[in-house]
Amino acid sequence: MSIEKVEIVPIGFVERTSPDKYVKDKKLLSKIVLRSGLRTALEGIEDFSHIFVVFWLNKISGSEGILRVHPRARADLPLVGVLATRAPTRPNPIGLTLVELVKRERNVLWVRGLDAFDGTPVLDIKPFDSWDTVINPRIPKWLEDINK
Amino acid sequence: MSIEKVEIVPIGFVERTSPDKYVKDKKLLSKIVLRSGLRTALEGIEDFSHIFVVFWLNKISGSEGILRVHPRARADLPLVGVLATRAPTRPNPIGLTLVELVKRERNVLWVRGLDAFDGTPVLDIKPFDSWDTVINPRIPKWLEDINK
Repeated sequence: MSIEKVEIVPIGFVERTSPDKYVKDKKLLSKIVLRSGLRTALEGIEDFSHIFVVFWLNKISGSEGILRVHPRARADLPLVGVLATRAPTRPNPIGLTLVELVKRERNVLWVRGLDAFDGTPVLDIKPFDSWDTVINPRIPKWLEDINK
Repeated sequence: MSIEKVEIVPIGFVERTSPDKYVKDKKLLSKIVLRSGLRTALEGIEDFSHIFVVFWLNKISGSEGILRVHPRARADLPLVGVLATRAPTRPNPIGLTLVELVKRERNVLWVRGLDAFDGTPVLDIKPFDSWDTVINPRIPKWLEDINK
């Protein structure tokens, strides 16, 4: 099967309310500013407490050839395939984060816990539903150790 | 901020083991066949029981202008913004599905419950971790009614 490029126009961009260096702080707020023409497409999203954000890690480049990483760049953790991690250095630098939807104002979503830099292109958002959950998933030992 | 296109080369494609008309049957298996050069990037993914699949709904076109839908095309449900649903007719027809990872064979993942047609381009996969979960999310009444 031929490999053809997919062209995607972002639906909007991230505007952080805090410096990029705090990107991993899950308590902080960000705005997702959608194209004004998409305001209607957001109607009713405020009835969800959480959404997935699918975004493009546009600050990551040249990482396509990286196939293995130490998770969290920790040399004490085993070297595993990048697709077995959530590392940003992956064949396609797509981010996926579940965030709390705090409020909507017209075409702007206020969310808590988005680990995306200021100016990040947003490709899609998905309301979180109960079937997005797995009870007691199996995960590798290295990830159990991180989560402790 | 300027809206520039993001160009993404699929990491692989879906090969269903059953006809497309059974796409909603969560018990059925599909294969995700990655580019052979990405085999190494999968090392260790078999230690996860579940993965998210991010895919491109390439059979959907001309839906960019649809801003409101009845969820599940059910006229008895309220008209809501497309981004407040998981409808495939959305500004960017990106699919996101949590599936069971049954096994890996070299560059091929066998997964259960992927609602993607045969030949669907896959943009990324993400191992499922416990922090992808929300306990007791708030969802709209129309979705509560569907889930009953």
